[in-house]
Amino acid sequence: MLMSRTFLPVMRETPSDAQIVSHQLMLRAGLIRQTAAGIYAWLPLGLRVLRRIEAVVRREQDRAGAIEMLMPVVQSADLWRQSGRYDAYGPEMLRFADRHGRDMLFGPTNEEMITALFRDGVRSYRDLPRTLYHIQWKFRDEVRPRFGVMRGREFLMKDAYSFDLDEAGGRASYDAMFTSYLKTFAVLGLRAVPVRAPTGPIGGDLSHEFHILADTGESEVYYDAALDAVDLSDPDAPATLRRLYAMEAEEHEKVLAGAGCPVPAERLAKRRGIEVGHIFFFGTKYSDAMGLSVQGRDGAPVVPLMGSYGIGVSRLMGAIIEASHDANGIIWPESVAPYDVGLVNLRPDDAGVRAAADDVQGRLEAAGKSVLHDERDARPGEKFATMDLIGLPWQVTVGPKGVAAGTVELKRRATGEKAELSLESALARIAG
Amino acid sequence: MLMSRTFLPVMRETPSDAQIVSHQLMLRAGLIRQTAAGIYAWLPLGLRVLRRIEAVVRREQDRAGAIEMLMPVVQSADLWRQSGRYDAYGPEMLRFADRHGRDMLFGPTNEEMITALFRDGVRSYRDLPRTLYHIQWKFRDEVRPRFGVMRGREFLMKDAYSFDLDEAGGRASYDAMFTSYLKTFAVLGLRAVPVRAPTGPIGGDLSHEFHILADTGESEVYYDAALDAVDLSDPDAPATLRRLYAMEAEEHEKVLAGAGCPVPAERLAKRRGIEVGHIFFFGTKYSDAMGLSVQGRDGAPVVPLMGSYGIGVSRLMGAIIEASHDANGIIWPESVAPYDVGLVNLRPDDAGVRAAADDVQGRLEAAGKSVLHDERDARPGEKFATMDLIGLPWQVTVGPKGVAAGTVELKRRATGEKAELSLESALARIAG
Repeated sequence: MLMSRTFLPVMRETPSDAQIVSHQLMLRAGLIRQTAAGIYAWLPLGLRVLRRIEAVVRREQDRAGAIEMLMPVVQSADLWRQSGRYDAYGPEMLRFADRHGRDMLFGPTNEEMITALFRDGVRSYRDLPRTLYHIQWKFRDEVRPRFGVMRGREFLMKDAYSFDLDEAGGRASYDAMFTSYLKTFAVLGLRAVPVRAPTGPIGGDLSHEFHILADTGESEVYYDAALDAVDLSDPDAPATLRRLYAMEAEEHEKVLAGAGCPVPAERLAKRRGIEVGHIFFFGTKYSDAMGLSVQGRDGAPVVPLMGSYGIGVSRLMGAIIEASHDANGIIWPESVAPYDVGLVNLRPDDAGVRAAADDVQGRLEAAGKSVLHDERDARPGEKFATMDLIGLPWQVTVGPKGVAAGTVELKRRATGEKAELSLESALARIAG
Repeated sequence: MLMSRTFLPVMRETPSDAQIVSHQLMLRAGLIRQTAAGIYAWLPLGLRVLRRIEAVVRREQDRAGAIEMLMPVVQSADLWRQSGRYDAYGPEMLRFADRHGRDMLFGPTNEEMITALFRDGVRSYRDLPRTLYHIQWKFRDEVRPRFGVMRGREFLMKDAYSFDLDEAGGRASYDAMFTSYLKTFAVLGLRAVPVRAPTGPIGGDLSHEFHILADTGESEVYYDAALDAVDLSDPDAPATLRRLYAMEAEEHEKVLAGAGCPVPAERLAKRRGIEVGHIFFFGTKYSDAMGLSVQGRDGAPVVPLMGSYGIGVSRLMGAIIEASHDANGIIWPESVAPYDVGLVNLRPDDAGVRAAADDVQGRLEAAGKSVLHDERDARPGEKFATMDLIGLPWQVTVGPKGVAAGTVELKRRATGEKAELSLESALARIAG
């Protein structure tokens, strides 16, 4: 992609209305623009990152055996009246009437709808277990939207729903998602701490939140410092993590007031966290409410047990930036970078340099790398600042001296390390 | 994918509430389920088709030089007050207030929002021309939703917006989209007739609708029969098509009442059509309203000229089925089929047949083909009926006789043609 052909409005100044660094950088790097309070448009560069995060989430869901579908955003209030949540859900639910005066809502979650769809589509124990998921825009009318996409009102969420024939199966589905979530966050370059959580309005008796530790997090997490030492690539990691103590402040207070903290004071860590996932096992709560039952192996009806599993896909972009940036801008992990390589042409007015830069772009793309090529008529300093700001993993600079010497400059964004290399060596380095 | 692991609730009976064949088949083949009037959930098989249609639309937009971004579904009424459309737009616009009482709406289209975003992101003539697009869910509160996804209320739409510095550039952008649309529909196996259209509430003086000719279409189109003979692969086809007469009934009546029909009676064809695309060139209507202007080459401000370009992505699925089905079910074009091959295991209780069928699945997938493998404990007749209903391009049947003889049965869904072949020959035939 040529920089002169895309739509990438970067900002030099830090916007005064953005309080946290991820929000500032998402605005400055031209990833998003606010169109109403807590509602954002994804500009071309931001959409590329969002799609890559979504692709990682999708791949890990598929690997965990979940089946993708897509539910609509507008729901009928009648569905929510069946579960009793229409009246119970607070003012975060965006409610409205259609032109015929029927009560509708913009879905904040989908337990009712998936249970009704599954109920109408299955008949017997042979149709279970199943875990279904979708990745869809949700709306929660936050009273005070803030922190950009971290606490927006319209946001992209992956929500999965498991259906099992018995308690053991239901807990196995829960465990599978627990493990899959740790993997998902690790691929995104994030270290997530699973925190035992209250179940709240979703219901049930088993729930974990996944928090990314970051100083700008909205939650306060108390946890066994042994968690920090767990090797996530160890197959036993999920089980180990579930054994170790981790609670949000409010729950931790309850523990202190009750049995007392099970972790010795010198091992108790306290950090701020960003919640990026939340999973629940709630048994038959919605199956009962929505009349879901199937024929069991012995012919008698069985009421399936359910869990639900959410990941804040758009929020993850903010969390990744909070975890990976420096004073000059974003540092994208390779798994979600909008382009692999930023190519800077120092002298687009020089035909030889232009031909060399075009050749570099062609060879990088032929090697399967995506390239954002800055061939605009602009000062080198501005181009380098923009590349650092938007945080592509690699920068390749082509200028007259290099063209004469047969080299390019290769810079690794994460470390700032630079080298003058032949194009072949640079390509080999980028290919890893 | 194993049939026993997905969620594919097919229906044997034709649903009584579905009037047209595409709606009936989408329900019967387990592609969609209605969740409220005119609102549908996309089940796993339906979502796979939707994503493939979306991918074709995206690829052709990218090839035409349009840049993808993503605008939110909820919009502020204030944006629409700036253009004057908040009051002008009818009851099809879903309006509501948020918890603070601010007027909001579920976007039916995005001229105002893209103009405001573009206005805030560009400064000079160097930033133009640009065509930006997004693929997003829209809502139009149809008074009488019907025909399934053909006239639903929540629907997926690709909408693009062009910005040019002068009239000639604006018309060139329009022409580029015109040509790109013809290509898009052709890749989807559809023959689209461009019809000169009134501009309606979008505004402007140049507009075309693209209609797929089908007896179940909601529109009536009068056109020069010479259109039917145009070779769409001819580079001159777009220009030829724009010269030939084609009008919707209402506009045709106006022509008759005025200058009279320019086409001799014996060459005037009349068919029903499904509108799947609509493009507009409306000059500075929204640039003026939203205060978009850039610095021109000579330093003086220039007000960009705009066009907008819509494709009904979810509606296309209905149109494709209307154009491609038989008495037994859907016949998917290869470009959008949910899987390339349906694999039927006639005897899943036989270990030898099971091993052979698993091997066929593995080899097809290794060859890059997607496979839906029916290994359920069900009668062969039911399996064949399901495969015909869901309409995958190829069916491969593995049974005990074939295993003994070293053959499989290969069936082409579109023609019904069957052959007993070695697996190698079948693979070669499927690979094309």
